[in-house]
Amino acid sequence: MIKITLPDGSIREFESVVTPLEVAKSISEGLARNTISAIVNGTQVEITTPISTDSSLQLLTWNDDMGKKAFWHSSAHLLAQAIMEFYPHAKLTIGPAIDSGFYYDVDFGDKSLSEKDFEKIEKKMLENAKKDSTFNLYSVSKADALKEYEGNEYKTELISNLNDGEITFCSHDNFTDLCRGGHIPSTGIVKAVKILNAAGAYWRGDEKNKQLTRVYAISFPKQKDLTEYLERLEEAKRRDHRKLGKELGIYAFSEKVGAGLPLWLPKGTALRKKLENFLSDAQKKSGYEFVMTPHIGAKELYVTSGHWDKYGADSFQPIKTPNEGEEFMLKPMNCPHHCEIYKVGQWSYKDLPKRYAEFGTVYRYEQSGELHGLTRVRGFTQDDAHLFCTPDQLLAEFENVIDLTLYVFRSLGFEDFVTQVSLRDPENKEKYIGSDENWKKAEDAIIQAAEKKGLKTIVEYGEAAFYGPKLDFMVKDALGRSWQLGTIQVDYNLPERFDLHYIGSDNEKHRPVMIHRAPFGSMERFIAILLENTAGDFPLWLAPDQFTILPISEKYVDYAKKVSQLLENHDICGLIDDRNEKTGKKIRDAELKKLPFMLVVGENEEVSGTVSVRRRGEGDLGTMTIEEFISYFKKESKI
Amino acid sequence: MIKITLPDGSIREFESVVTPLEVAKSISEGLARNTISAIVNGTQVEITTPISTDSSLQLLTWNDDMGKKAFWHSSAHLLAQAIMEFYPHAKLTIGPAIDSGFYYDVDFGDKSLSEKDFEKIEKKMLENAKKDSTFNLYSVSKADALKEYEGNEYKTELISNLNDGEITFCSHDNFTDLCRGGHIPSTGIVKAVKILNAAGAYWRGDEKNKQLTRVYAISFPKQKDLTEYLERLEEAKRRDHRKLGKELGIYAFSEKVGAGLPLWLPKGTALRKKLENFLSDAQKKSGYEFVMTPHIGAKELYVTSGHWDKYGADSFQPIKTPNEGEEFMLKPMNCPHHCEIYKVGQWSYKDLPKRYAEFGTVYRYEQSGELHGLTRVRGFTQDDAHLFCTPDQLLAEFENVIDLTLYVFRSLGFEDFVTQVSLRDPENKEKYIGSDENWKKAEDAIIQAAEKKGLKTIVEYGEAAFYGPKLDFMVKDALGRSWQLGTIQVDYNLPERFDLHYIGSDNEKHRPVMIHRAPFGSMERFIAILLENTAGDFPLWLAPDQFTILPISEKYVDYAKKVSQLLENHDICGLIDDRNEKTGKKIRDAELKKLPFMLVVGENEEVSGTVSVRRRGEGDLGTMTIEEFISYFKKESKI
Repeated sequence: MIKITLPDGSIREFESVVTPLEVAKSISEGLARNTISAIVNGTQVEITTPISTDSSLQLLTWNDDMGKKAFWHSSAHLLAQAIMEFYPHAKLTIGPAIDSGFYYDVDFGDKSLSEKDFEKIEKKMLENAKKDSTFNLYSVSKADALKEYEGNEYKTELISNLNDGEITFCSHDNFTDLCRGGHIPSTGIVKAVKILNAAGAYWRGDEKNKQLTRVYAISFPKQKDLTEYLERLEEAKRRDHRKLGKELGIYAFSEKVGAGLPLWLPKGTALRKKLENFLSDAQKKSGYEFVMTPHIGAKELYVTSGHWDKYGADSFQPIKTPNEGEEFMLKPMNCPHHCEIYKVGQWSYKDLPKRYAEFGTVYRYEQSGELHGLTRVRGFTQDDAHLFCTPDQLLAEFENVIDLTLYVFRSLGFEDFVTQVSLRDPENKEKYIGSDENWKKAEDAIIQAAEKKGLKTIVEYGEAAFYGPKLDFMVKDALGRSWQLGTIQVDYNLPERFDLHYIGSDNEKHRPVMIHRAPFGSMERFIAILLENTAGDFPLWLAPDQFTILPISEKYVDYAKKVSQLLENHDICGLIDDRNEKTGKKIRDAELKKLPFMLVVGENEEVSGTVSVRRRGEGDLGTMTIEEFISYFKKESKI
Repeated sequence: MIKITLPDGSIREFESVVTPLEVAKSISEGLARNTISAIVNGTQVEITTPISTDSSLQLLTWNDDMGKKAFWHSSAHLLAQAIMEFYPHAKLTIGPAIDSGFYYDVDFGDKSLSEKDFEKIEKKMLENAKKDSTFNLYSVSKADALKEYEGNEYKTELISNLNDGEITFCSHDNFTDLCRGGHIPSTGIVKAVKILNAAGAYWRGDEKNKQLTRVYAISFPKQKDLTEYLERLEEAKRRDHRKLGKELGIYAFSEKVGAGLPLWLPKGTALRKKLENFLSDAQKKSGYEFVMTPHIGAKELYVTSGHWDKYGADSFQPIKTPNEGEEFMLKPMNCPHHCEIYKVGQWSYKDLPKRYAEFGTVYRYEQSGELHGLTRVRGFTQDDAHLFCTPDQLLAEFENVIDLTLYVFRSLGFEDFVTQVSLRDPENKEKYIGSDENWKKAEDAIIQAAEKKGLKTIVEYGEAAFYGPKLDFMVKDALGRSWQLGTIQVDYNLPERFDLHYIGSDNEKHRPVMIHRAPFGSMERFIAILLENTAGDFPLWLAPDQFTILPISEKYVDYAKKVSQLLENHDICGLIDDRNEKTGKKIRDAELKKLPFMLVVGENEEVSGTVSVRRRGEGDLGTMTIEEFISYFKKESKI
């Protein structure tokens, strides 16, 4: 008897060797039809792979991430097959599935691949797929494998690093590849294919090696899926924050200042300040106190915190002084500084919790190739805070932080999120600092608070920070993409390292517990996500330009300026369009530029001290006095 | 005939050689009585020094800074004389006048000087002064001078560095010293003397040399002046921002973070944010746009700006990266970053001026011995802005900046200030970058704008920045001390170095002119001055704690909390004093802590939703509803 344990804990028994497909059939024909891959005891296999001992089994369909992985991995075989048919002298290297699709790195020798070649390859892949061939995995001896790939130095290198007995080939149709397995049942279910891009990539990612051509592609079980995917891709391009950031004058990079160091332009600065003020107010109401700390700290500070040992070698290197032999580091995080602020005072249990907040700009070295717009930068501002509390207060504080985080997300239109509880890898405890007892306390507090707040959570082992476990928030944007945003982390270690204490009700010294938290995570990253989520069409209160005044002729420009100044006195900011154009054209341009309000002014308005108000998407709202417009605006722009 | 030109331009003629004293007598007996020193053709001399050619002459009394200098320089002779009477084996070195008093550096050998020795020295100085000896300056040959100071290696070193013919001695009473001259007529006018301090000081300021004892002292023509001075000194100690900063919880330093890197505590951060918001609003109303830039920049940025060549070796050293061989610098000023922001756009003359403002934190290396509270730090935040305009706009922009600066100073209670126009040293043009023509244009614009605004100005040659001339604002605080604050600088050079341009009405490229300006100079320094000027008794709108609520018993603490929250919703911040103390005691404590409002709450107040309002220095203001108090507070706290 073979016992098969399914993910829900149920067990099915079979008399002898059984395949995932047979298990699926034993549940339902419909499931069997949709099952395209399986995970047996943690390893992804084909659905026809025999299971001969008691095992855990997860059946995968296209709707599972790992199901898609099998689909795309298999499609990579189809890509390689088609490439070899057109370019028989090309050398294949590796071709994995990725988050969205797959790629194959190919050495085309003196040939090159251009966009006009994509279509014929796509056609050939689909033509081959239609033959509905199965994928057949079989073992090959090292000697035979090397012989098969004579002249292909890449596969030869891969094979050389494997042991005899570990080498498998996979064949379908007329094509065979070195492969570890994990395929869909047959090629026929691949119904739609798109080659997205061909880019240079070094063999094994090392720029000392030869540059290959990385062919990116994606495939789907239905043509409709591909069409939708391409539409989303177009939409994502349209919403790319790097494009919008430039168009809207939010930020820029300068080669002279350095890669990954954003310059915030006036409109971006205004947007960011509004977000900071919103966050400030929310935090002040929750009992946070703001502090400000320098952007550097003596190296000793990071030796104490443990950052130096852990990250020193990979960071921006120490800043030396002309004499006196001092060494400073750019601060990679604000916590050590906030610990030193905590130490300025003498605290009793009655004074706690202390909640120190700071929009703290930190600097972390990233390789230039890893940088990406505002989402991966070398300098960014955390909406940071550190809470110092007694162990008794931890759970309540953690819950308050969750409340604040949810309030902030919802206020900005992010309703759809999941949270990840990141715990220590129990197999690799030496990667983390701090005692087992403290880790248990911290992990329990997070799990409990998340449960109490009814959060959708995923638990991940091994994803904790080196100093403590954490709760991360992932939000879904308007395109359904997931972004990691805020984080809340419990820390029993830094209070130890900085020798922090408070006087308890017993008049003895005790260690406070620390919570690190940042709802947005980073202002830069959050604004990037906000740009992509709103496509630049910000909520009214956040719009960098909230109105445009349209004088119907040059005569009314002075009145327009007067109106603009009155509005600015109420922190309502905008533009005057004094171009020599028809009002109709100015209105159309304002709609295109996503300006929320258009205020038309002419003779009547000037005489009566009014504006004719148009709202984007709503049209004419009639004539209002300036005061009426201000109070209407304030009502409409409430968060 | 000898023509003597006085500072007001008037000319007096004398038949032959004449002394400053004789010139004074020719004007009035009173002036002659008060004249204690003189400047002839730029050199300070005794009032008995003969003038034998046409000369410019400035007569100096105690009320002139240079008059005090002669007084204190002469007093240093009295100090040295008295020291030698008590410590005949001591070796004298140098003894100059300083801003407030004078010092003498003495090698006491194996003896040391302590506070209990001060009185006997003071007495001896006055006793000798009473002899009313004159100071007699005479030339000595180098050989004779060296012989005189045999065994005194310090004077020997000084004399060795002088040429024959340059060496003068000065004798009064029984005492002689190596001296360049510039004394008061006789010792008798020194009526009051105080030795302030004895501290270690290295010979020639070099720590490799022997440590001497620096004896600080001050002297006055009247005992009353000394008494007042000592009172002011006491008052200054009481107002020392380092003491107040600690007491009021404004800022702190931490050894682990590093010397000269202030940590802003919650109350200090709140104060600073209020000041920043005030400045922000004022600047936005004047057409400034805020930007934000990183705290580092690629080294190349500072090579382009010229800072690297000029200051690189004395700065925080470059920050290297783990690989990629990049080098970054902590930014010592914001201008290069703002130039790069200007370059992001394409500007026409109609778009100018662009006015980019930023509270930009910069880092400059200072020797640890030079650091002092918040007035001399290694990291500070400039209330910075850079204006880019056409040459035609320069004068108007410069005037606008002066208006803004004066508005800001006056709003904060600084009414008494002078300005210094800092021009290039015409003898040392090679110290500055940029063409003669551009320097002339810039210097003329500053002088013209300052004149038009009717500013009290001093012109100083050689005090310009290396990149352009400037106008500096010096304010007087409540103790009459002068502080350098804001600066406005014209710069034709950075636009050149960064190759900035705009398109003129002629459709051709032109160079913009740049103005650097910072009304406060640095937030840190300004807050230090504000602390010392107000002694911590801030204007209502700036007070970190604006009220304290005093519940008359424990029963009303909840109501107190409710009131506090309502006030905080209107950005009125304060405390609740829920100690188990009598209300009278709580009021006295609140007065001592300089809390502007005391809100007493008990049964009556809770029932009627009111507070009993006391104002510090004014007493009981009666009962008000919360709304009434809020509107009263808002009226009272208007800037």
